[in-house]
Amino acid sequence: MRIHHLWALAFSWTFAIGVQAEARKPADLIVNGDYVLTMVEGEAALKNAAVVIRDDLIIDVLPSAEALARYDAGRVIPGKNRVVMPGLINGHTHTAMTLFRGMVDDLDLMSWLNDYVFPMERRFVTPEFVRIGSELACWEMIRGGTTTFVDMYFYPDEIAHVVDRCGLRAVVGAPHIDYPSPGFEGWEDSFAAARQFVDQWQGRHDRIRPAFAPHAPYTVSAEHLAATVDAAADTDALISMHLSEGPAEVAQIQSTYGKTPVNHVAELGLFDQKLIAAHMVVLTEEDIQQVASAGVGTVHNPTSNLKVASGVSPVPDLLAAGVAVALGTDGAASNNDLDLWEEVRLAALLHKGETGDPTAIPAQTALALATRIGARAIHWDDEIGTLAPGMQADLIQIEYGDTNQLPLYDIVSHLVYVLDSEDVTTTVVAGQILMQDKQILTINEAALRKSVEDMASRIRAALSKGS
Amino acid sequence: MRIHHLWALAFSWTFAIGVQAEARKPADLIVNGDYVLTMVEGEAALKNAAVVIRDDLIIDVLPSAEALARYDAGRVIPGKNRVVMPGLINGHTHTAMTLFRGMVDDLDLMSWLNDYVFPMERRFVTPEFVRIGSELACWEMIRGGTTTFVDMYFYPDEIAHVVDRCGLRAVVGAPHIDYPSPGFEGWEDSFAAARQFVDQWQGRHDRIRPAFAPHAPYTVSAEHLAATVDAAADTDALISMHLSEGPAEVAQIQSTYGKTPVNHVAELGLFDQKLIAAHMVVLTEEDIQQVASAGVGTVHNPTSNLKVASGVSPVPDLLAAGVAVALGTDGAASNNDLDLWEEVRLAALLHKGETGDPTAIPAQTALALATRIGARAIHWDDEIGTLAPGMQADLIQIEYGDTNQLPLYDIVSHLVYVLDSEDVTTTVVAGQILMQDKQILTINEAALRKSVEDMASRIRAALSKGS
Repeated sequence: MRIHHLWALAFSWTFAIGVQAEARKPADLIVNGDYVLTMVEGEAALKNAAVVIRDDLIIDVLPSAEALARYDAGRVIPGKNRVVMPGLINGHTHTAMTLFRGMVDDLDLMSWLNDYVFPMERRFVTPEFVRIGSELACWEMIRGGTTTFVDMYFYPDEIAHVVDRCGLRAVVGAPHIDYPSPGFEGWEDSFAAARQFVDQWQGRHDRIRPAFAPHAPYTVSAEHLAATVDAAADTDALISMHLSEGPAEVAQIQSTYGKTPVNHVAELGLFDQKLIAAHMVVLTEEDIQQVASAGVGTVHNPTSNLKVASGVSPVPDLLAAGVAVALGTDGAASNNDLDLWEEVRLAALLHKGETGDPTAIPAQTALALATRIGARAIHWDDEIGTLAPGMQADLIQIEYGDTNQLPLYDIVSHLVYVLDSEDVTTTVVAGQILMQDKQILTINEAALRKSVEDMASRIRAALSKGS
Repeated sequence: MRIHHLWALAFSWTFAIGVQAEARKPADLIVNGDYVLTMVEGEAALKNAAVVIRDDLIIDVLPSAEALARYDAGRVIPGKNRVVMPGLINGHTHTAMTLFRGMVDDLDLMSWLNDYVFPMERRFVTPEFVRIGSELACWEMIRGGTTTFVDMYFYPDEIAHVVDRCGLRAVVGAPHIDYPSPGFEGWEDSFAAARQFVDQWQGRHDRIRPAFAPHAPYTVSAEHLAATVDAAADTDALISMHLSEGPAEVAQIQSTYGKTPVNHVAELGLFDQKLIAAHMVVLTEEDIQQVASAGVGTVHNPTSNLKVASGVSPVPDLLAAGVAVALGTDGAASNNDLDLWEEVRLAALLHKGETGDPTAIPAQTALALATRIGARAIHWDDEIGTLAPGMQADLIQIEYGDTNQLPLYDIVSHLVYVLDSEDVTTTVVAGQILMQDKQILTINEAALRKSVEDMASRIRAALSKGS
């Protein structure tokens, strides 16, 4: 007994000296999880692990016990019954359209656009509308664990300021189009404003990257698209656009230019820029090869593409060719929410049915589309999409273990096929906690609700007069 | 002033006499809603309305203010920010497979069945397994607002007793199959047990209807299917089976019998019984006509059919031909949950993409598949599927108005495209409250969780040894 006791004492001294010799390093935040999914290619889920954050960066990913021994953090978030993973990336949306959520559904695309969306946009879309609608979108995205989004909507300056304030990360696209749009008479003034927006924001904000957003090849002429290419090349800015969204577009571009939409915009030089191409539903084999070799990122919007009956992007073929594919919700008017978990689940299911191959887009791949692969698709994989030292600290915690979710055999399968946005508890972007224990910290919810209700009352009145 | 006061007094006397003259009628429960969707064909949502219940029946549906004046109810559930609608109907599931939820995914069907599902079933499926797994399934269904389900799994007597205890409503199918299955050597003993089960339960329980459940035309011989038909005719019992689930089945039945699966089982007399045919993915025009004229109910399982790559049931064609279609989750092993809201949403989205028609399966129809039309498909529309006097009191309340759900323009669109199972607050079956304010009242959650974890530990151990 005596000897054992002495030995234990000696051991505890050595241990204490060992810890003292290696003083604990300073950190701002440690986020723990029963599971940590780094989403680094080939890395399995870590059990009982932690992500250590200093300023806006991840400085370590290691077992929870070691994290507490090695780091002295101002704040520690416990990990019991929680998974930690990179924040989700929404590759394509029109944030302020949240205010048109469910305004009208289940119509053919032309009635939907011409009888409802365009007239309501002409009537209601102002800087104030965009500020309120974007804040509502950011609220929903923080709540559901989306940390980065790619936006394309009117008054992008308002959107960028909302992003700045609420703490999310975004590619904010400045739309330009050959037709009248809110605030503009046509291409000339909308393109000039886009140039100004890009000049103002490029390289000026850690979490915001501006983009040129020419609407689509059927709404912006070849000459005007070429001007976008020149402007993007001058500024090294991203380009975000709708491309090859459905059969009608393909037929129109084919008849006007004698080419596929992909060939058409590639020849205009868009594929030489950092392009984010949303939808990409109708593609030839040759289109896919061209997209792959140019390093164009694509965005799969499964819910929206089904809802407006465009079709289904050939994601398995794109991935096989080496194309980076992100997932997108599109605007809330054609979804009708910004819940990326539904897109992850649908991406995993849909292609199995489409291809007849139940191994198509396995759960791990579906999750990668919303994180690592999605980051590559939006040309931001230098900073986000995985949890590793040196990457931006954009991460989320998801709670598992409600009775209706039992039992658990595989955490990745669970995340994709069982859990959903309601289960997200914590959202961190660039080291800042935007939501903790399901409480959003950076947006005044009561004031937001009031603004949304005021705007919705006016829209409701217009809808009832119109009917 | 004086005159006004007197006038008011006189008025209040008259009012009091009026109420006394028409004494308030007794009721057990009044459930209010900002909106009440009766789901009766052609009826719009009622605003600020109430459903009045006595014993197990709905006795009135009327404005909330009138309900309080006319009925004296023991219990009143308020309706602020809540929608009331019929409970959802899950037309096809294998309840106890909840214990295999997410055990293995994303494999081709034959590996999934032969390497995992069948061996694990042979090893683990006992009456105790079925009791625990079914209780877990019932917990999940009550939580998500499903009030009726159609089941097909081993040890149906265990399932029926769980249904009896937890208060749900179910068609419980007794499986019979030409191969060894848990508890049985083959067709003969499994069919004898099914006969016994049907005899025991037919007409004996208000909420439970037994069914013969021959597995499928490729696992039960023609001769044995004919025996099922005779037994169902003798007892007036339902038949529930898998039919025309995928191309492999169609090819096999075509090569063995020279017919489509639909023709094959119709000629054997199954279409002369009250048949619930699950899946119905691969169908000819003639098949659809035959199903319609026979009054066969079909069950569309969109998630499961995508996940195992069977395809998509031609629901718009079935509905156009007058066939009653229900929605089903299938078992949790191929879904991986029993969340009928996901099936409603997917049913609304999927056929738009499949047919290229954005008006296919509008939101109102998708909701009817899970209620009124689904009730017809499972041959129980005499008692459930709509809220109307004389119908069974099976209903749910769903809360709306979370910030991420704002704004609201159309409650039906909202239910289908925005809200989900987490928003269900109240579940009532046959007048009994099974869940109130998201608290389930009829199942001991702590004991259930312990039983599930014990069983899951044993399954986990077997999985890790097998790998």
